[in-house]
Amino acid sequence: MELTDLYRKGEDLLRQRDIGFLLDGVETEFSLTHDRRVLDRYTFRQQCIDAVEATTGCQILGVELATPIVMSAMTMPIPAIREKGLLEVARALKEAGSLMWTGTPTPKDLQEIVDTGVPVAANVKPLTDRKAMFREIDEIQEAGVRWVGVEIDSGQGTKIRDRMMAANCSPLSSKELQKIRKRVSVTLILKGVLSQGDAVKSIEAGADGIVVSNHGAHTLDYLPHPLQVMDDISRAVKGRVVIMVDGGFRRGSDVLKGLAFGASLVGLGKPILYGLAAVGREGVREVIKAMTHELRRIMTMVGVPDPSRVDREILIVD
Amino acid sequence: MELTDLYRKGEDLLRQRDIGFLLDGVETEFSLTHDRRVLDRYTFRQQCIDAVEATTGCQILGVELATPIVMSAMTMPIPAIREKGLLEVARALKEAGSLMWTGTPTPKDLQEIVDTGVPVAANVKPLTDRKAMFREIDEIQEAGVRWVGVEIDSGQGTKIRDRMMAANCSPLSSKELQKIRKRVSVTLILKGVLSQGDAVKSIEAGADGIVVSNHGAHTLDYLPHPLQVMDDISRAVKGRVVIMVDGGFRRGSDVLKGLAFGASLVGLGKPILYGLAAVGREGVREVIKAMTHELRRIMTMVGVPDPSRVDREILIVD
Amino acid sequence: MELTDLYRKGEDLLRQRDIGFLLDGVETEFSLTHDRRVLDRYTFRQQCIDAVEATTGCQILGVELATPIVMSAMTMPIPAIREKGLLEVARALKEAGSLMWTGTPTPKDLQEIVDTGVPVAANVKPLTDRKAMFREIDEIQEAGVRWVGVEIDSGQGTKIRDRMMAANCSPLSSKELQKIRKRVSVTLILKGVLSQGDAVKSIEAGADGIVVSNHGAHTLDYLPHPLQVMDDISRAVKGRVVIMVDGGFRRGSDVLKGLAFGASLVGLGKPILYGLAAVGREGVREVIKAMTHELRRIMTMVGVPDPSRVDREILIVD
Amino acid sequence: MELTDLYRKGEDLLRQRDIGFLLDGVETEFSLTHDRRVLDRYTFRQQCIDAVEATTGCQILGVELATPIVMSAMTMPIPAIREKGLLEVARALKEAGSLMWTGTPTPKDLQEIVDTGVPVAANVKPLTDRKAMFREIDEIQEAGVRWVGVEIDSGQGTKIRDRMMAANCSPLSSKELQKIRKRVSVTLILKGVLSQGDAVKSIEAGADGIVVSNHGAHTLDYLPHPLQVMDDISRAVKGRVVIMVDGGFRRGSDVLKGLAFGASLVGLGKPILYGLAAVGREGVREVIKAMTHELRRIMTMVGVPDPSRVDREILIVD
Repeated sequence: MELTDLYRKGEDLLRQRDIGFLLDGVETEFSLTHDRRVLDRYTFRQQCIDAVEATTGCQILGVELATPIVMSAMTMPIPAIREKGLLEVARALKEAGSLMWTGTPTPKDLQEIVDTGVPVAANVKPLTDRKAMFREIDEIQEAGVRWVGVEIDSGQGTKIRDRMMAANCSPLSSKELQKIRKRVSVTLILKGVLSQGDAVKSIEAGADGIVVSNHGAHTLDYLPHPLQVMDDISRAVKGRVVIMVDGGFRRGSDVLKGLAFGASLVGLGKPILYGLAAVGREGVREVIKAMTHELRRIMTMVGVPDPSRVDREILIVD
Repeated sequence: MELTDLYRKGEDLLRQRDIGFLLDGVETEFSLTHDRRVLDRYTFRQQCIDAVEATTGCQILGVELATPIVMSAMTMPIPAIREKGLLEVARALKEAGSLMWTGTPTPKDLQEIVDTGVPVAANVKPLTDRKAMFREIDEIQEAGVRWVGVEIDSGQGTKIRDRMMAANCSPLSSKELQKIRKRVSVTLILKGVLSQGDAVKSIEAGADGIVVSNHGAHTLDYLPHPLQVMDDISRAVKGRVVIMVDGGFRRGSDVLKGLAFGASLVGLGKPILYGLAAVGREGVREVIKAMTHELRRIMTMVGVPDPSRVDREILIVD
Repeated sequence: MELTDLYRKGEDLLRQRDIGFLLDGVETEFSLTHDRRVLDRYTFRQQCIDAVEATTGCQILGVELATPIVMSAMTMPIPAIREKGLLEVARALKEAGSLMWTGTPTPKDLQEIVDTGVPVAANVKPLTDRKAMFREIDEIQEAGVRWVGVEIDSGQGTKIRDRMMAANCSPLSSKELQKIRKRVSVTLILKGVLSQGDAVKSIEAGADGIVVSNHGAHTLDYLPHPLQVMDDISRAVKGRVVIMVDGGFRRGSDVLKGLAFGASLVGLGKPILYGLAAVGREGVREVIKAMTHELRRIMTMVGVPDPSRVDREILIVD
Repeated sequence: MELTDLYRKGEDLLRQRDIGFLLDGVETEFSLTHDRRVLDRYTFRQQCIDAVEATTGCQILGVELATPIVMSAMTMPIPAIREKGLLEVARALKEAGSLMWTGTPTPKDLQEIVDTGVPVAANVKPLTDRKAMFREIDEIQEAGVRWVGVEIDSGQGTKIRDRMMAANCSPLSSKELQKIRKRVSVTLILKGVLSQGDAVKSIEAGADGIVVSNHGAHTLDYLPHPLQVMDDISRAVKGRVVIMVDGGFRRGSDVLKGLAFGASLVGLGKPILYGLAAVGREGVREVIKAMTHELRRIMTMVGVPDPSRVDREILIVD
């Protein structure tokens, strides 16, 4: 099945179910259309004479991947879509050479997921009950995840339209991030950075990577799209940590824009859900494979040999 | 009931009634869509590491409020929506820790409104019959309002689509404003400032505060949205008077944009009507409470501890 | 009947008739929507303290008018709308204190129109048969028109969608314009100036006034809206000739934008047709009267005492 | 039949057939609407006093044409529309004084097409099987084409929505282009240049002309419209090779914009298909004739005497 059809079928199926509302955005849903508008500002500077076939493989923070396209942190509503959904996603991502990233709640079968062999990252929320948060951090490490992610942007919980979804969260302080850093023996990623200030504090707290993200329009309304703040953040980061990005990326062309802005990995949320809802494991694999194929074609034609060598100059701003 | 539903239900109910046309804008109704476009230009610079829970309480010109979200000057069509509508609004605003602001005509039960304990401001129009205007000023002061507001922008009356609504008005001169200033023993607010010139004259006339407003699209067509002129006005005001704003603010995110541009209070018109029409007193209270909750969440996550300490830098212009 | 309704009713009635296609624009009809977009870029800088009631009377090139809102050059399809339509329009405009401007073909009853007492301007096209053109110039002067207008922009005829309407025209040279100047003993207006070059040549040819116009989208596709080129033209004109403007002006607010850009008069095309089609003579008078009323209200509130004293600073660009 | 109707009828007929999907764009089809948006940014600076009737004839790389409007490289789906479609197109273009440009697959009746007397250009794709590519180059030269075109932008094949159409292609190197240059004894055009880099390399490889093109949205998604990169390219080219352009040009006004940006010829894709599908040979001729007529009218009125003397200053950017 082709990508357009896969997305449409997956969305249609999800919308017909009681979990369909999880596709909605926070409050006015401004971000959902704004994300697209920002992505649409950029076109590509084709440079195809002497082009060489691009490769998409990359090694990020010790993880070997066949593609810079990975899963964005998410658990819900995967088990509701298919009972063994998380495992199906894990196997699909492994087959596609991608990375699995779980969210809230921490999957009960996290160990089983890790055992599939897919590289796994797992997020925790800044639960107001900090002890519970640290317990979760310990648990996911014990399960053997490669990266621990902390959602710094969930400090006021999450929200869909007018409904609070996770209200038991509180903002994290720099001191708390340092404590987390000590508790995490694997790679530590801070997710939800949207400003220089938070980027610098993330580095100072010892993070290995940051995810520039507006949390898929599930925290605050009227957050910018990551591409609006990436340059600001890159200037402050100066290569000291790995930068990842997510937010409305749907096609290989979108992914290359994220890379051109300095991201090393681009995360997918809804495309994973659509693929899974539409045809299960094969659907998820197809999403990653098809987008990677789209990405590779454009990379080749704009003169980007591999994801680590993308020049911002490939973009035409308009 | 949630905010989105409350607005929709309230608007639907009002539109079905003969007073529904009062929701229309002046002439081409350009402002109604333009207001939204201007508000949509701004997103927030999230700074959430080390964030502290924000508070929304504020003290403005001697009035203690639990929220910077107040009612915009309005009487009509509240009594037409519900017979005791103004009193219901008063009680709802008191419960929400907000401020009530009446408009034209001056409510007959103004004294009763004041007696609910809600802080009350009351507007007068620049009636061509100046004696009548001064009589109104006296009457509303006698009722015990905290602030007297004068609508400098109604000097050509008000208008809805092609229909003149209040035609018996004339522009006020600086001299007349000074006379008004002498007659008003409480706080004096001039409403409808949209330029540096009028802001400076307002200060010179002795106003305590100004409302930057395009009058809810009920005076002149093609007035700018307040955010388009706020910087200009702030530069001239230099903190000498309190600045308030209204015009299409619908959610907590909109309110924070108003505050970021230098407003101390943000006024609501239609949301009050929608809340009242939908479920009465509880609806109005819910509007203020829900928007204040939205506001507080974003304030916390962008590093604004309280309404008096908002930095323009929290906005990303786009 | 109110303006919005008048326009809608008039347009509906015309569209149902075989002459309805005359409301269409040239080729892609880009200009029809573009005109509105350009007009919508500007809002007003309200300055209402110390405002004085504006007056709209003006004296332009020896003609005394009650309003700067006049008819744009047009004959067709007025006689098709109502048999004595041109006379009805003449009487309506006289009653409204406006100016009548006829176009192609030169009305057979031009003398009768002049005899109504309305100030009349009459246009000629740059007919390839120059002798015929000069004959027309003589005839309209003999009828007693106040101004002779020459459509310099019809040098490639006129066109509606894909259909050529007036194909027997050729561009005019500077020399020919000088000959026309000699032949015209009354005021000479050149219509269809959209560049500095043509403005300067118009002055050099001895024109008394120019009309900045994209010909109501009936000559060439993708012409700019007059407001896009007015500043350029004003800089070259330096007050040496009177500047008029037309193109999609529909409300008093639009007219004031035209004046703010330096125009002395603003012309109406379709609004005249709509008013006539909807209710005849009263409709045309109402269009001018209602727009003038709208204009006067805004003029008053932005500090413009009369049409000769409009400052560009009243506009906020956005 | 008029142009608007011809386009509509042609598109409707094609859409009803199984070849209709060939009108779709690559992946998200962003380019299809973006092309129009970019073309719509420009209006014309009319300079009509002293205007002279423009002519559209031009001599480009040894080919005498009555119009700068030519066919864009295309074979498919012409034979599917009408069995002898390519020959009909050839005769129509000859009658209109235009140029025929064939694409993939190389028409079997190329010799017959050349024999109609229309000047013919023929493209080859950068087939991964380079020997096959060189065979094609030889064959089309033997058929007597005037120009050989090479699609440098098909190095990743072509694609419609999610479907790969020509997957057996690989990017060309500068060395290979030099080999092609040696093999081509007639005029050599490189098609699909969208950057300075590729323009310079094209010149260095000995090309006589380049086509700035996003390949009608059939290669990569999110390519810019040619007008976005023409200035950049012109600065690098400095007149050393002939520049042509295509991409969403539909009317004479669009063509003049292409010329104003420095193109010598403007290519049409879909308009040719629409004309052919709607009424066959006469339709194609009518498309060229009607657009040329539109072009000539505007050229005349903006002061462009012939296609070789177009000044960028005729455009107003907005």
